Amino acid sequence: MAPAGEKKNILKRLDAGEVVIGDGGFVFALEKRGYVKAGPWTPEAAAEHPEAVRQLHREFLRAGSNVMQTFTFYASDDKLENRGQTLSFTGRQINEAACDLAREVANEGDALVAGGVSQTPAYLSGKTEEEVKAIFMKQIDVFVQKNVDFLIAEYFEHVEEAEWAVQVLKASGKPVAATLCIGPEGDLNGVSPGDCAVRLVKAGADIVGINCHFDPETCVKTVKLMKEGVEKAGLKAHYMSQPLAFHTPDCGCQGFIDLPEFPFGLEPRILTRMDMHKYAREAYNAGIRYIGGCCGFEPYHIRALAEELEAERGCLPAGSEKHGSWGSGLSLHTKPWVRARARRDYWEKLKPASGRPFCPSMSTPDSWGVTKGHADLMQQKEATSKEQLEALFDKASQGH
Amino acid sequence: MAPAGEKKNILKRLDAGEVVIGDGGFVFALEKRGYVKAGPWTPEAAAEHPEAVRQLHREFLRAGSNVMQTFTFYASDDKLENRGQTLSFTGRQINEAACDLAREVANEGDALVAGGVSQTPAYLSGKTEEEVKAIFMKQIDVFVQKNVDFLIAEYFEHVEEAEWAVQVLKASGKPVAATLCIGPEGDLNGVSPGDCAVRLVKAGADIVGINCHFDPETCVKTVKLMKEGVEKAGLKAHYMSQPLAFHTPDCGCQGFIDLPEFPFGLEPRILTRMDMHKYAREAYNAGIRYIGGCCGFEPYHIRALAEELEAERGCLPAGSEKHGSWGSGLSLHTKPWVRARARRDYWEKLKPASGRPFCPSMSTPDSWGVTKGHADLMQQKEATSKEQLEALFDKASQGH
Amino acid sequence: MAPAGEKKNILKRLDAGEVVIGDGGFVFALEKRGYVKAGPWTPEAAAEHPEAVRQLHREFLRAGSNVMQTFTFYASDDKLENRGQTLSFTGRQINEAACDLAREVANEGDALVAGGVSQTPAYLSGKTEEEVKAIFMKQIDVFVQKNVDFLIAEYFEHVEEAEWAVQVLKASGKPVAATLCIGPEGDLNGVSPGDCAVRLVKAGADIVGINCHFDPETCVKTVKLMKEGVEKAGLKAHYMSQPLAFHTPDCGCQGFIDLPEFPFGLEPRILTRMDMHKYAREAYNAGIRYIGGCCGFEPYHIRALAEELEAERGCLPAGSEKHGSWGSGLSLHTKPWVRARARRDYWEKLKPASGRPFCPSMSTPDSWGVTKGHADLMQQKEATSKEQLEALFDKASQGH
Amino acid sequence: MAPAGEKKNILKRLDAGEVVIGDGGFVFALEKRGYVKAGPWTPEAAAEHPEAVRQLHREFLRAGSNVMQTFTFYASDDKLENRGQTLSFTGRQINEAACDLAREVANEGDALVAGGVSQTPAYLSGKTEEEVKAIFMKQIDVFVQKNVDFLIAEYFEHVEEAEWAVQVLKASGKPVAATLCIGPEGDLNGVSPGDCAVRLVKAGADIVGINCHFDPETCVKTVKLMKEGVEKAGLKAHYMSQPLAFHTPDCGCQGFIDLPEFPFGLEPRILTRMDMHKYAREAYNAGIRYIGGCCGFEPYHIRALAEELEAERGCLPAGSEKHGSWGSGLSLHTKPWVRARARRDYWEKLKPASGRPFCPSMSTPDSWGVTKGHADLMQQKEATSKEQLEALFDKASQGH
Repeated sequence: MAPAGEKKNILKRLDAGEVVIGDGGFVFALEKRGYVKAGPWTPEAAAEHPEAVRQLHREFLRAGSNVMQTFTFYASDDKLENRGQTLSFTGRQINEAACDLAREVANEGDALVAGGVSQTPAYLSGKTEEEVKAIFMKQIDVFVQKNVDFLIAEYFEHVEEAEWAVQVLKASGKPVAATLCIGPEGDLNGVSPGDCAVRLVKAGADIVGINCHFDPETCVKTVKLMKEGVEKAGLKAHYMSQPLAFHTPDCGCQGFIDLPEFPFGLEPRILTRMDMHKYAREAYNAGIRYIGGCCGFEPYHIRALAEELEAERGCLPAGSEKHGSWGSGLSLHTKPWVRARARRDYWEKLKPASGRPFCPSMSTPDSWGVTKGHADLMQQKEATSKEQLEALFDKASQGH
Repeated sequence: MAPAGEKKNILKRLDAGEVVIGDGGFVFALEKRGYVKAGPWTPEAAAEHPEAVRQLHREFLRAGSNVMQTFTFYASDDKLENRGQTLSFTGRQINEAACDLAREVANEGDALVAGGVSQTPAYLSGKTEEEVKAIFMKQIDVFVQKNVDFLIAEYFEHVEEAEWAVQVLKASGKPVAATLCIGPEGDLNGVSPGDCAVRLVKAGADIVGINCHFDPETCVKTVKLMKEGVEKAGLKAHYMSQPLAFHTPDCGCQGFIDLPEFPFGLEPRILTRMDMHKYAREAYNAGIRYIGGCCGFEPYHIRALAEELEAERGCLPAGSEKHGSWGSGLSLHTKPWVRARARRDYWEKLKPASGRPFCPSMSTPDSWGVTKGHADLMQQKEATSKEQLEALFDKASQGH
Repeated sequence: MAPAGEKKNILKRLDAGEVVIGDGGFVFALEKRGYVKAGPWTPEAAAEHPEAVRQLHREFLRAGSNVMQTFTFYASDDKLENRGQTLSFTGRQINEAACDLAREVANEGDALVAGGVSQTPAYLSGKTEEEVKAIFMKQIDVFVQKNVDFLIAEYFEHVEEAEWAVQVLKASGKPVAATLCIGPEGDLNGVSPGDCAVRLVKAGADIVGINCHFDPETCVKTVKLMKEGVEKAGLKAHYMSQPLAFHTPDCGCQGFIDLPEFPFGLEPRILTRMDMHKYAREAYNAGIRYIGGCCGFEPYHIRALAEELEAERGCLPAGSEKHGSWGSGLSLHTKPWVRARARRDYWEKLKPASGRPFCPSMSTPDSWGVTKGHADLMQQKEATSKEQLEALFDKASQGH
Repeated sequence: MAPAGEKKNILKRLDAGEVVIGDGGFVFALEKRGYVKAGPWTPEAAAEHPEAVRQLHREFLRAGSNVMQTFTFYASDDKLENRGQTLSFTGRQINEAACDLAREVANEGDALVAGGVSQTPAYLSGKTEEEVKAIFMKQIDVFVQKNVDFLIAEYFEHVEEAEWAVQVLKASGKPVAATLCIGPEGDLNGVSPGDCAVRLVKAGADIVGINCHFDPETCVKTVKLMKEGVEKAGLKAHYMSQPLAFHTPDCGCQGFIDLPEFPFGLEPRILTRMDMHKYAREAYNAGIRYIGGCCGFEPYHIRALAEELEAERGCLPAGSEKHGSWGSGLSLHTKPWVRARARRDYWEKLKPASGRPFCPSMSTPDSWGVTKGHADLMQQKEATSKEQLEALFDKASQGH
């Protein structure tokens, strides 16, 4: 295993004002490549098909990522067991394999390895703080043994569970980042982004922010609210954002999960590389220095972030060898009217058509999240039996 | 090298009425992964980054592809030289590397290797039949030496050049497929799809069809016209289609090249897996038995073709292990209203929103191809100097 | 009664190369004003509320109309009786009142009066030529007695019925115009526009063309096909178009009737005055000299036609006193950025937004017209009983 | 002149909990009919073409309006003089004619006459309170002499000017309504809707609310904010809304004026009658009892309001004689698949298509109002010379 200490620590980078480019979304990318199952979002590919996971790591590295996140999303033991299926690998083996792959590729460039945990079925089903923390502890154990460079608690819908995760991660002595998958309205219990951020910082997070569930515009807006909250409380933190690569102007409080297009009809919403340039600039202007992506981010999206911030980072990613920023590669195209598109101005102004005249531009999110609101929803989840829930859901889905 | 003869020949498969699933689009997929430059659409990754090309082959194989096309698009010597750049590899080395990778992965499953040639700068710049054929011959040489299973002449805008290619390929003694990148209006000289098909069959093509430039609906429609032409002429052929994975209802005669979104703003047009099911069915119903894809096709698109034709093919692809057809994997999702989407009916009816209310659904193609028509365009290309062309193009692009 | 002969005859105007501006759509405009019932499209307002009909005539006159069509659409006796309702006025009284109103307003300016007949329930229910002609004769009787200036047979879906109408109208000795409500695919029996036009000219029509059911673009295209047919047959005629003021790019062969938005959700499709300028120019360029409108045309739409053709007609309409062409009136607006819109260039380039992000741009027409085609449809209409029809319709409407 | 006192007073009606249906937008409707010039929005038609104004009043009465507003919008002397054009009628004559027409038609049914004043160029150009009030006084003089039933101060962008108007109107002893043309962000000085409402009530308004500039959804939302403000202040008022009949989800703080489609490209945004049913119900549910319309409202829109509130009002409007609610008139249509649309359910679910695939669903408002904000804009208006303003506007409009 590579000596982690040789590379510049994540906090030193951020303290020095460097821009850190994160990586993209593994579960969505690997689902399209054939290695992850949508729904349970299976993580066992790290053990089963290491060549596929390694290749995706390499593509993100080549695109400019400074962080290789271990592919350990939904790889907690309780989540794996939930699937009611015997796997060829134990949770520990999967987590170990994911760490080894991330380290192998990180060492091919200037990247750090981040071990990641995410929300657990244990919390949602009402387990105690000790029980939930024990779940996190199992994954951390692997991360510490494999000597990852820092830790990320990500994709939490309830700040309380995220606090518990941060406390467990913090105990490892490694730097800790924490991101919630919430929008400007706050977590699913209605705790505002500002309050969430304060609680995470107090729990020990060095870096706080948002990942998944919403598009870059919404995520940057929400991180701004977090930053305001932290600053108002007289605290200090670094900020990160890892949004979707899907436009979601029509989301309710639970984000893209509730959109009728989730997860197999999201194609028309995919951000272009021009959209990514805009995101990188806005995130930077908002004071966010750890800028990456989540579901939908393919390597070329990450490359666009790195290219937009070329001046700030002082370098272009390796992958730009096969890419001219803003379409400059088109100057070699055979047709002159395509060569005319080899300029930033052209792509910035483009309003890309969908080719789908029978489809609308916006959707109505599924009714639960929107019409009933957080509180109601939570109440239902707690108060009703599984049977009642199913009945409610049947009713709701008919109305769709 | 593996003995190609051990696998069932492409023509025997088609003669037996089998469905042959093609693979997807290498240049677009590898551009997004960071290994190909848009514009010149560089092919050298086969030699430079074999792990990336190998991995993409594997994903298509896993998705159900029965054919591994060598990644030799735009890998003719005249095209490589056109770039005015010294490459670390010769054209021959690139073509050899591509053959080796295709064969290596084909042997991991039930796939054949197809060596491919495409339209040349030589033809466009008015070189003689002999000169153009000599270009093709160089690539064929490699394909024969590497003993590919069959040959494809693809992406031709002029049937004349395609005929020359077919004649060269045919001389190898291997089965020959030929596809044009044209729509129902015919090739760029106005030769109808039916007449094009007849000429290709007479030149020696065993399989004829369409690839690239248009969406599946348009391509299937055009192949139908080819089939009608061939049958009316009392000839026989097999049919194939390898369309774009982009919706292009608004294209002119030159296809997606002329759309203002080409090639960096096409995201909203990407087909969903539901669209792919529809394509597979329509192609099958039209009598097309070699069904694959071109630019925009990712492994999951190919998987959707294979899943739609499960009954006809008698098997599911390996990748379906991580995929339930029509969203059945969602039955394990944590939110009940997402579980409600685990049914074919839901996805068939969905009209996916773009999340882009400021964008239209259709674009106007760049003016040359549309307002001036084929003949005019050709005339300009032949009659005007480079300087005059540039002036015309400046004028045209200002009007955009 | 006013002496009709004092004004320049319609044919003399057209023979002299003059542009004749028609009027707009009475049933749709009066429905919105509260005097006509959608569905049966009741004509009795001429007798019941003459002030409303007179006012609409005046507005069209003021907008530049050279023709006041009697408001006698669907005012044949068989149609009135079909409604199973006792009216306070006889069919004759309604037709007489309509003639008087048209004449009264025509005499306030340079307009002619045209008496109009349209398709009958008698024909659809299979009555004989004699019976159908007798229906037309009743209305003509009134028109002759009231001495209208010329006659129009309009809104026919079957050229055969239109021929019968023309024959009856022709017998009056007055000039006769005939328009079908068909698109480029031809009448509901599949007779092509060219053949339809030839038959109408042979039956005695001096002016032939298209009205209703399709947008201006489609109607102009169809009249062009009629003109080609007439000229190929070595015949002569004048040409007219009176299209919808609704965009209908997504119609099937029966036009806007089959669109799911018909008739109460058509608002987003209403043409702007800029669209009307374009229509006037295209119709003029196609050799059409009688240029008017049908359903959806409000007075300001007619005014836009007259303003576009100011140079050709040598005058502006009276209503332009309160209108500056191409928004020039905005130069007096209080806000400078609105004053910036007072120019033709601005309005020509505008792509107006719908403000409806949850709505698509195109609809699928109801299934009958589209999936079954003309022949099938006709067959059903003839072969099945009312009960069977209802069953078919129930089935069809469920699929919607 | 008719004795106004014989009809039930507006406040008695509202105190009794009755629903009062307002009328629609005169300047937009009469512009389309040919009697009003867009830009200066000329009011002289009342004197010049009384038959046109009378007919429009009648149509609104027939559609269910309980109020005939005098057509005196922008008919203050300073506004008329601003046009730099000699009119055939004095301001007084125009205001008198408007009163007479409103009264004549009001007496044909159960409607009251409301005299209306609106914002003045005097205020915008910085005249004193006394000067501005003197302008209002001139119009009130006519209203009092003509004995209108109540008074409306409408279309104010600054609550201060509206307060002045209310004070003048109140002195007449007649009931006073006051509406601002603002959205949820407040007036152009940033005064919130709640504070605006409180100030208007304190100035003497009996009825407060919103008119013009925004769609029904936004207006109802803003009136709710006004109501909350009034109630929080321990005051009492009645509430009214007279929104646009255009969808404006994409407006900035100055409403539809800033949309690039204003005023000649708004057609795709026109509300359907189904949209109107929804508006009537939402306004009613929000506690608004004076429910009418402004620009874009045609008689059939008002009729839809009256039909939605049939149960609450205990009657249908006269115009419903020619209208079946929710499309029931279609049950007499000749085509069975159109008859299938004769039901509420069908029209409620319809998402009407625009037929404009090359247009977006949303626009970006012109840059001034949006990017610079109220304060900036006001500052510019005050601080810069006309020349500087023009320069700024040129710059702004180029960027569009």
